[in-house]
Amino acid sequence: MKGIKIFSPATVANLACGFDVIGLALDFPKDEIFLYKSNNPGIRIHRIHRSSSLPNDPMKNSAFVALQSLLKKYKQRQKFDEKEKIGFEIELIKNILPGSGIGSSAASAAGVVYGANILLGNPFSAIQLIRFAMEGERIASGTAHADNVAPAIMGGVTLIRSYKPLDITKLHTPNKLWVSIIHPQIEVKTSDAREILKQKILMTDAIRQWGNVGALVAGLYREDYELISRSLEDVIVEPIRAMLIPSFYELQVRCKEIGALGGGISGSGPSVFMLSKGNYTAKKVTEVMNRVYSPLQVDYKTYTSPINSQGIKWTQIL
Amino acid sequence: MKGIKIFSPATVANLACGFDVIGLALDFPKDEIFLYKSNNPGIRIHRIHRSSSLPNDPMKNSAFVALQSLLKKYKQRQKFDEKEKIGFEIELIKNILPGSGIGSSAASAAGVVYGANILLGNPFSAIQLIRFAMEGERIASGTAHADNVAPAIMGGVTLIRSYKPLDITKLHTPNKLWVSIIHPQIEVKTSDAREILKQKILMTDAIRQWGNVGALVAGLYREDYELISRSLEDVIVEPIRAMLIPSFYELQVRCKEIGALGGGISGSGPSVFMLSKGNYTAKKVTEVMNRVYSPLQVDYKTYTSPINSQGIKWTQIL
Repeated sequence: MKGIKIFSPATVANLACGFDVIGLALDFPKDEIFLYKSNNPGIRIHRIHRSSSLPNDPMKNSAFVALQSLLKKYKQRQKFDEKEKIGFEIELIKNILPGSGIGSSAASAAGVVYGANILLGNPFSAIQLIRFAMEGERIASGTAHADNVAPAIMGGVTLIRSYKPLDITKLHTPNKLWVSIIHPQIEVKTSDAREILKQKILMTDAIRQWGNVGALVAGLYREDYELISRSLEDVIVEPIRAMLIPSFYELQVRCKEIGALGGGISGSGPSVFMLSKGNYTAKKVTEVMNRVYSPLQVDYKTYTSPINSQGIKWTQIL
Repeated sequence: MKGIKIFSPATVANLACGFDVIGLALDFPKDEIFLYKSNNPGIRIHRIHRSSSLPNDPMKNSAFVALQSLLKKYKQRQKFDEKEKIGFEIELIKNILPGSGIGSSAASAAGVVYGANILLGNPFSAIQLIRFAMEGERIASGTAHADNVAPAIMGGVTLIRSYKPLDITKLHTPNKLWVSIIHPQIEVKTSDAREILKQKILMTDAIRQWGNVGALVAGLYREDYELISRSLEDVIVEPIRAMLIPSFYELQVRCKEIGALGGGISGSGPSVFMLSKGNYTAKKVTEVMNRVYSPLQVDYKTYTSPINSQGIKWTQIL
C-alpha cells in the first residue's frame, strides 16, 4: 500500500464549560487528504485546493510540521542498517476553512500523521499521533494544544485531563447528539481571543464551571440530555468572547427556544455551535442560525452534523 | 408507625478536585437517631449521647433547625380543616464527632428530615429534604451548603452542579471503591478554613482543576480506577489548607506508596481521606495512617469504610 485517501473531520473545541479540556469531532465538514509514501526523502505538499489563505512556506503549514515531527521520531527508532529512504507526498483538499474555529489546521495535521502511521505499519499509538499533530498546532496557532487534534484522532467527545503528563480520555457519546454550526466569515485571531481573557478568575465562578464540567461528563455517560443541556454553561470565557461574534446572544436564545440543548463559541470563534437531541431538532436549529444571520451584512456558512464517533476515516488508493 | 431508628452516615465533602461540588457517603462511622412522631406540637431533643460539645440551645442544633424547616413547609401545605397537631421527639446518638470534617452536623440534619419524611408518609422529594437539611447546615457552619447532606440523603457519590437553581446528581459508584479516614482531634473551624482561601485564582489552575473533575466523573462511570487515581488532584485548595493538618503530605505520600488511589482533606478538615480499590488495600492504607500519626502528640481516630451507596438507612421501632 503506497497511498491512502484520508477524511479528516472538523472539530469543536472549548465545549462550553469545558474550556480548554472538552472537544468533539464532526462528520462534516471534513478535509480530504491524499497521502503517498515514496522513496524520495522529504515531505512535499503538492496542492491545497479550495483555500488561498494557507501559508506557502511549508514550515508554517500544520500538516507539514506535524508529519515532519512524526518522521523524525520514526527515523530515530530505526536501527542503522534498517535505514530506508522515506518521503511523503501530500495533496490537501481543504473543505474546512482556515480561521473558522472548527479545527482547520488540526484536521490537516491530524489527518497526515494518522495516514502516515497507517502507511508505516502503525508504529505509533493514538497519544503519540496527538503529540505529533500538536506540533502542527504550535505552528498554526502559537500553542501546541490538543483541543482539536485529540477529537479528530480519537473521535467522539474527548477530555484533556492534563498536558503534563499528556492524559486524554475519550468520553461516552450519546448517539442522538447532533451539532449545528454557524461560521460567520469574519476574522478572529486565536492570539487575540486569548489575550482578552483574564489571567485570574473568581473562585466562585471557577467552582460553578467545574460543577458544570462534572455534570456534563455525567450527562454524556448517562445519556441524560436534560443534564447535558443544564450543564452547557460557560460563566468564564463566553461572557468575554461573546463580543467578538455578531449577534451571539440572539443566536443562543433563539436556538434554545427552538429546542437546542445549548452551545457556545467553537474554539476561539468565530464559529458558534449548538448541540441538539436528534437530527430533526438539529436541522431546525441550523435554520434558526440562518434566519438570525441572513439580515446581517456578514457572509456565513452553516453545517449540521452528527458527532463523529470514529474520528479520521480512510480508504486505500487502488 | 410512630417511631423509627435512623442510621445517618458520615460523609466526605470536597473530594480533591471536586471542591464544593463532589462528596460521598460512608458506611461508618454513622449516627443513630431515634425519631418519634407525636401529637404534642413542637420538636424536642431528649438526649445527645457521646458528645458534650454540641449546643444545648436547640436553635443552634442542626437537627432541630432542619426539622423545624421541614415542619413549617408541611404545615403550610395542609388544608385548614386537616390541621393536625404534630410534634417530634428526637434522640441523637452521635458517633460522628462534631468538628471532625466528615459531616457530623449534616448527619444529624439529614437523618431527622429523612426520618420525619417517612413518618409523615413521604410527602417530600430527596431534593426538598436536602433543602431542609441545608438549613441545619446554615446554623452549624454559617453557610447553607449541600456538600455533606446531599451524599447523606442520596447515598453514593454526589455532584452539586449548581445552587441556583439547586441541581444535584448522583454519580455512578464503582463497587470496589473504599475509603480510609484519619481524624486528627485538633480544631479546624470551617470559617477559618474558608477565610484562608483566595477569592481569585489563576485561570491555568482552574482549567487543570476542571480537567480533573471531568476525568474523575468519567473514571467513576467507567470504573477506571487508574483514571480516578490520576484525577484525584487539587491544585487550588489543598496547597493552602494542607498547612492546617499535621503531617498532611507525609500521609499522602505514604498512603499512595502502599496503594491508595489518592485523597485529600475531607470537607474543611481536619480529617483526611484516601480512596482505594478494594477492602484489603483500604485497610493497609488505614494502618499506614496510624503509623504516620502514632509518633505525633495528637489524638486521632481512623476508619475504613466502603462507599455507602444507599445513604441513610432506617428500621421501624416495634
